[in-house]
Amino acid sequence: MSQAFGDATAVERVAAGRYRGTIHDGWDIGGNANGGYVLAIGVRAMAEEAGRPPLTITAHYLSPAPPGPCELVVETVRHGRRLVTSTAALVQGDRELMRVLGTFGQPADSPITALTAGPPQLPDYANCVIGSDPSDPQVPQIAAQLAIRLRPGDDGFRRGQPSGIAEHAGWFSFADGGPIDEIGLLLVVDAFPPAVFSSGLPVGWVPTVELTVHIRARPAPGPLRCVFRTRFVAGGMLEEDGEVWDSDDRLVAQSRQLALTPRTP
Amino acid sequence: MSQAFGDATAVERVAAGRYRGTIHDGWDIGGNANGGYVLAIGVRAMAEEAGRPPLTITAHYLSPAPPGPCELVVETVRHGRRLVTSTAALVQGDRELMRVLGTFGQPADSPITALTAGPPQLPDYANCVIGSDPSDPQVPQIAAQLAIRLRPGDDGFRRGQPSGIAEHAGWFSFADGGPIDEIGLLLVVDAFPPAVFSSGLPVGWVPTVELTVHIRARPAPGPLRCVFRTRFVAGGMLEEDGEVWDSDDRLVAQSRQLALTPRTP
Repeated sequence: MSQAFGDATAVERVAAGRYRGTIHDGWDIGGNANGGYVLAIGVRAMAEEAGRPPLTITAHYLSPAPPGPCELVVETVRHGRRLVTSTAALVQGDRELMRVLGTFGQPADSPITALTAGPPQLPDYANCVIGSDPSDPQVPQIAAQLAIRLRPGDDGFRRGQPSGIAEHAGWFSFADGGPIDEIGLLLVVDAFPPAVFSSGLPVGWVPTVELTVHIRARPAPGPLRCVFRTRFVAGGMLEEDGEVWDSDDRLVAQSRQLALTPRTP
Repeated sequence: MSQAFGDATAVERVAAGRYRGTIHDGWDIGGNANGGYVLAIGVRAMAEEAGRPPLTITAHYLSPAPPGPCELVVETVRHGRRLVTSTAALVQGDRELMRVLGTFGQPADSPITALTAGPPQLPDYANCVIGSDPSDPQVPQIAAQLAIRLRPGDDGFRRGQPSGIAEHAGWFSFADGGPIDEIGLLLVVDAFPPAVFSSGLPVGWVPTVELTVHIRARPAPGPLRCVFRTRFVAGGMLEEDGEVWDSDDRLVAQSRQLALTPRTP
């Protein structure tokens, strides 16, 4: 995987089901680490314990995650022949920041295939627009780690000209160009600006309550094509659905998160 | 809530975080209880412990659930002012059948609302077709508890004439006509015949690995309009996405599950 991402999500096994990691500086938005990045740390510990890559992962976010050392407490719920189910608690000091429930295993060789949609139609990587300029002090720190390119127009919200449709599409790559593995996909699905920013709604910070990611295949090399959509904003909540496609036109991940809208705009 | 459903999902608190329940006969498919029904038992214990209704729930299914007594072990992960996060293990004898991670709380009064879609277009309840005839011995036992009506054509797979589109829509009601609360929605999203049955693929039993449900509002009285779609079958897996709408045209639940396709058709 990407060297920088691998280093920033490394975990060390200190006892059965107990790992140490570090929430690194530079993967944050205003001092709090990106949710997909924090999830990747937890799932590296779970995947090592399970001996398999993640298949379906759900995280519930309990508290913002400042940089610093953290501990992962992994409980194996069921160790089956094909699938392993486990939970992880990510703890900093005496505060739990995130709880994860996941099932691990390899996708199967199955002759049954049917896809009703393909990757999003996008201009080439070079003809998409830089997601965020890392030299802009307004831009989240994590932007320097990534080389996201947005579909032209999906960056309009930054200039007060939202497209009016809560959909963002574009390319994902790490800034170091390194490969994206199953655990990298957990970051990919939480790395774009929230789709609701283009809706035209007066929406500010949208804290994630829950994020579920289905890993559908290990990505082939190269940047990934992604699309994220919010269809329903109501009751103080919104969902954001994501799809991620690799250079072989294969669906590699689906995601959905539930986030809170601010109570007052 | 519906009397029959309430009785079949009742739990009794026996100690802090420990509940007893019963997986009732008659809510099964071929002797194994419906996944949404089993989830409702677990979430009743979690909701009682949290003192709040469910907002986002994820279940990982570990083993089929035969009828009989069961125990729920609930761990409160975080008890916040607005939201409570907890886990539950549903155990029968010394075997855990299901692990749940959920966050509980009330939807907020928020002035920010945007919906890009409405309820599925359906004929009136009376003009839709009976989901399953409970007197047919081929039909799952649970059919007798429900009064599902499918959109005409979505029942074609039963006669070897699948519509060719992996989408099922229709009305949900309990057979006793009783109200559907937040916990009832957990059954609603897993009660229709799998959408993939209408795809034309040679697909048999599709065991659920993981089911996530977002409760977006408490349903108004009356039957609910539902739509379920499978868009991607690949790598031995498929997702099924659900939307549930109430009689006030409000989105009350969104669901997604990851299921396995048989390795050989």
